[in-house]
Amino acid sequence: MKRYNVAIVGATGAVGKELITLLGERKFPLKSLRLLASSRSKGMTMDTPMGPVVVEETTSESFDGIDVAFFSAGGSVSKQFAPIAVQSGALVIDNTSAFRLDPDVPLVVPEVNAEAVRHHKGVISNPNCSTTIMAVAIKPIHDQAKIKRIVVSTYQAVSGAGVKAITALEHESRSHLAGEPVEPAVLPYASAPTHHQIAFNLIPHIDVFDEMGYTKEEWKMVKETQKIMNCPEMAITATTVRVPVFRCHSESINIETERKLTASEAREILSQASGIKVVDDPEQCIYPMPAHLSGSDEVFVGRIREDNSIEKGLNLWVVGDQIRKGAALNSLQIVEYMISEALV
Amino acid sequence: MKRYNVAIVGATGAVGKELITLLGERKFPLKSLRLLASSRSKGMTMDTPMGPVVVEETTSESFDGIDVAFFSAGGSVSKQFAPIAVQSGALVIDNTSAFRLDPDVPLVVPEVNAEAVRHHKGVISNPNCSTTIMAVAIKPIHDQAKIKRIVVSTYQAVSGAGVKAITALEHESRSHLAGEPVEPAVLPYASAPTHHQIAFNLIPHIDVFDEMGYTKEEWKMVKETQKIMNCPEMAITATTVRVPVFRCHSESINIETERKLTASEAREILSQASGIKVVDDPEQCIYPMPAHLSGSDEVFVGRIREDNSIEKGLNLWVVGDQIRKGAALNSLQIVEYMISEALV
Repeated sequence: MKRYNVAIVGATGAVGKELITLLGERKFPLKSLRLLASSRSKGMTMDTPMGPVVVEETTSESFDGIDVAFFSAGGSVSKQFAPIAVQSGALVIDNTSAFRLDPDVPLVVPEVNAEAVRHHKGVISNPNCSTTIMAVAIKPIHDQAKIKRIVVSTYQAVSGAGVKAITALEHESRSHLAGEPVEPAVLPYASAPTHHQIAFNLIPHIDVFDEMGYTKEEWKMVKETQKIMNCPEMAITATTVRVPVFRCHSESINIETERKLTASEAREILSQASGIKVVDDPEQCIYPMPAHLSGSDEVFVGRIREDNSIEKGLNLWVVGDQIRKGAALNSLQIVEYMISEALV
Repeated sequence: MKRYNVAIVGATGAVGKELITLLGERKFPLKSLRLLASSRSKGMTMDTPMGPVVVEETTSESFDGIDVAFFSAGGSVSKQFAPIAVQSGALVIDNTSAFRLDPDVPLVVPEVNAEAVRHHKGVISNPNCSTTIMAVAIKPIHDQAKIKRIVVSTYQAVSGAGVKAITALEHESRSHLAGEPVEPAVLPYASAPTHHQIAFNLIPHIDVFDEMGYTKEEWKMVKETQKIMNCPEMAITATTVRVPVFRCHSESINIETERKLTASEAREILSQASGIKVVDDPEQCIYPMPAHLSGSDEVFVGRIREDNSIEKGLNLWVVGDQIRKGAALNSLQIVEYMISEALV
């Protein structure tokens, strides 16, 4: 069996760490593992399935001999180093927004459009986390009933904003409960003109705004979903909100379809779909909740209801671990699929 | 100036307490104030604008001589005692769901349908808190552009579930942060077959489910809004979710109108409407957030955007203090309006 020389750029971040764990858990055929980060983390030692590995600074030489390079260190790092990695002969799986809408770069959720990997030119993009979770949940509905329009409101965990935001939620919550002043410094994002408390609060702002008043996160859910579903005419509008939850994004998804689906038909279709677990027994107070689903691989769907405000509508409540399925796991599943198809 | 003998049924609850505060803050013309509750709270003394008042148990004689009785002790208490209060000559302002959809009972948000009070037969209902907040925000849009359909997802504070849920969020958060086991016992509601943690979690379940998979809370947002807006053909679908926020409900509201409104037209219309404060300067990271708005009287509207997934659509992010505008304040404003019109 072929084994691979793997590099992780952004190894010390939340997604990087999860990738290291998943490489072990899923027994990825590693030949070697190189951990890359900024100069700040250089020299740090991390536990990996290959034993302790010292983190190196990312340079132009970092990709020599690398077969697969996972990038999750931010768009500017990907833009700088992904082309170098490709030139060195590596397959790049990029978890930033740098190339997602580039027509030459496949944007892949294996459960939805695995075949798209065949057209890669060195880089394959991993979608935005909230997009991946939604795409997995809606794909089986789209296949059966063709989706015309989606109205989605998100409830996104702080871990989507990185390790610092997790610490911020913890610290701010402690301060608030102790009656001490809360001094926010992390959200909505580091360089924002002002920072907001997330403890016991909601911040309707993820990533930067455009002139229409939408955030980049909201546009990602529109444009990336259309690309992944290969359906540019799918009408989508999104409102994305940060909530005081540590991990797992939740989404309230309203769907209008071309063909009518009853709630029980939708439940049946979703139950049989790959990557989805239906958790939907309201009488017993059973529905997906983020605090219970950290570390899960599936996308969880509940509160499946017909929307009677239109002729052919559905409401879904969807929860997924955005660090795993929303990022690290999806990246790894792309490579696993390519290995199984002998494409890498 | 006429002064009134006022009774508050459910005086020791979150809404009752807020009413007592508001009677003082708004210099309500009190002649006397009677505080009523269950036998459990009997004998307790509470500070009021009339000085310390001892809480009495609610009985058939409690309403003798009362001009205005505010009820917020649950639907069954209202069903039992509101007819008795009316028979004793009191005007009842009921904050429970007991009579809201009764065609003989006006359901009133003063900014929206104050005139409806004229048709009362002793009882006037105060809408569900999330409904009131939405109604204030959408009414000016409806007046200008006629709303055809609404898709709303809520982010509701624990105080909507009463004082015990506030304590639960506090205790559970402390336990979680201390690494101790969390033992939920309050939400989704006391008699539920199982209880869920709200600290650092989301519970997509408020009030009980029907056979279609919707909760009563979701139906309230549909039926009560149609009644308040006097527009039974307005299509509405709702998903209501409890979030780990102490106070203030937030709502992501998607609106389809008959006439096209641009975002700036909508912003202008909302800015001039009574009871609304527009907080919408995304470039400066300014938008409504629940943690900052406790104790406010207005409904706050931000993230005003055109929804390009349809021809004539808008997205709004709305936050309101559900204990004040969503309950106690709205009840009091109904009576203040009636006093100003010499209807009581």
